[in-house]
Amino acid sequence: MTAPFERIAILGIGLIGSSLARAIKAEGLARSVVCADANPEHARRAESLGIVDAGVTDPAEAAAGADLVMLCTPLGAYAAVAEAIGPALKPGAIVSDVGSVKQAAIDAIAPHLPAGVHLVPGHPVAGTEKSGPDAGFAALFPGRWCILTPVPGTDEAVTRRVADLWRGCGMKVERMSADHHDRVLAITSHLPHLIAYTIVGTATDLEDHLRQEVIKYSASGFRDFTRIAGSDPTMWRDVFLNNREAVLDCLQRFNEDLTALQRAIRRGEGDVLFDLFTRTRDIRRGVLEAKQA
Amino acid sequence: MTAPFERIAILGIGLIGSSLARAIKAEGLARSVVCADANPEHARRAESLGIVDAGVTDPAEAAAGADLVMLCTPLGAYAAVAEAIGPALKPGAIVSDVGSVKQAAIDAIAPHLPAGVHLVPGHPVAGTEKSGPDAGFAALFPGRWCILTPVPGTDEAVTRRVADLWRGCGMKVERMSADHHDRVLAITSHLPHLIAYTIVGTATDLEDHLRQEVIKYSASGFRDFTRIAGSDPTMWRDVFLNNREAVLDCLQRFNEDLTALQRAIRRGEGDVLFDLFTRTRDIRRGVLEAKQA
Repeated sequence: MTAPFERIAILGIGLIGSSLARAIKAEGLARSVVCADANPEHARRAESLGIVDAGVTDPAEAAAGADLVMLCTPLGAYAAVAEAIGPALKPGAIVSDVGSVKQAAIDAIAPHLPAGVHLVPGHPVAGTEKSGPDAGFAALFPGRWCILTPVPGTDEAVTRRVADLWRGCGMKVERMSADHHDRVLAITSHLPHLIAYTIVGTATDLEDHLRQEVIKYSASGFRDFTRIAGSDPTMWRDVFLNNREAVLDCLQRFNEDLTALQRAIRRGEGDVLFDLFTRTRDIRRGVLEAKQA
Repeated sequence: MTAPFERIAILGIGLIGSSLARAIKAEGLARSVVCADANPEHARRAESLGIVDAGVTDPAEAAAGADLVMLCTPLGAYAAVAEAIGPALKPGAIVSDVGSVKQAAIDAIAPHLPAGVHLVPGHPVAGTEKSGPDAGFAALFPGRWCILTPVPGTDEAVTRRVADLWRGCGMKVERMSADHHDRVLAITSHLPHLIAYTIVGTATDLEDHLRQEVIKYSASGFRDFTRIAGSDPTMWRDVFLNNREAVLDCLQRFNEDLTALQRAIRRGEGDVLFDLFTRTRDIRRGVLEAKQA
């Protein structure tokens, strides 16, 4: 059987990049997989783990001759990486990515691609709080959603090849506009991370002995936030800087709701609290039924 | 071997009550265990599960003749339950509880106890978002902390008997004042729940199609919040009403920190974000090292 791709280049071999490399190997989705990572240790590590055929530091070297180039670096590096690989891309190559913000991804990558190269932005909605090539695993993807946000006018056959890659990794694939993606993810992902970072940050500012107690008794709710707030700082800085408007809009709604709840507690309005806590249970039920928990 | 207690009465056979009943049975910590629950189905269910020797609806009936009575109802029911069982308690009996707020627990229970009955308030810091007698399991406790908040002047031997019970369930036991407990738990537990309820509530207010997408893509962070926000509404209403001041104080700090982060995003101050996200990683490391994750 011929593999769907000849050569896939993964640029950035962190949690998602290394999980994708493993899945490509496991499912035989490409004849060869190479990676580039700015951190030479990570590039070497990926090679010694056997999840790529070659690991280098120069993204142009990895991208040269590839029929699919997958950007898996933090968003803040996209423009520089795209600029570096532009001249090395072969005609007809597909450039895709896995970033958590899609409009900013398009804005950063598109200007640097030569004519005849296709861009199909994507976002596999899966992850853990871990980072680096050792953190990845192929089982990260099955059953989860991958969102593709092709720009109008993209060749349908090209989009389908990228969709098939993610389906080959076990994902369900959905399409939407970049703008819509960014608004949905602002509430499902970016705001929750922002809140978790804030509350764990509030705890780091406590006096030393109190901070130790917070860690000691974290099983009561706090530890779930520490898990989220243990996510990669560079990646998340870039997410917030690149989806600023949608995040600030969500945050505005959240603040209004929190203020209302604060007032209900201050006034001792038990029925307001009970009503909200009952409604939120239904959402939990929805998540369980959608098998996303 | 003689069991440490003759008869333990568990009042309220929900997640914690039924987990405790199972642990007592498994570890042989009492000759007999009875329970009372205002919901007759739950009382019967506990009996048919074999985790109690008898399940009734009248707390006084369960408490009569018990050498240890453990209140496991929501906090809002404490005063009424304490008033009901007061006359039925045998001299020398110990009354304890598992509530998430300790000063309010003492204020609700103490006035109703006859002379010669001991009060040892406690809080096993463990739980899940599930409720009811079927949700409990004995393995909920091992390795977690139980905090006892005995009032000054409590007989040391009595406090030790309650501590030994929780140790028998596999917990580590710590003592502190009720006031200190309430301030620590406000940040480790009550604030995280309040925030999770708020953010999931914000999502429930979205337009219908957007709400469906939030559920669909919840794997990106949101689902952790739905788990917390799926917790028992009655229990949590009572927690917020009974630890109002400490919760509002935490919320104030949280709001200040969130506002600062909001400003950093608006201004595009990536270094402020990166610094915070790096500090919060250390707290996560602390939680992992303390084996509370």
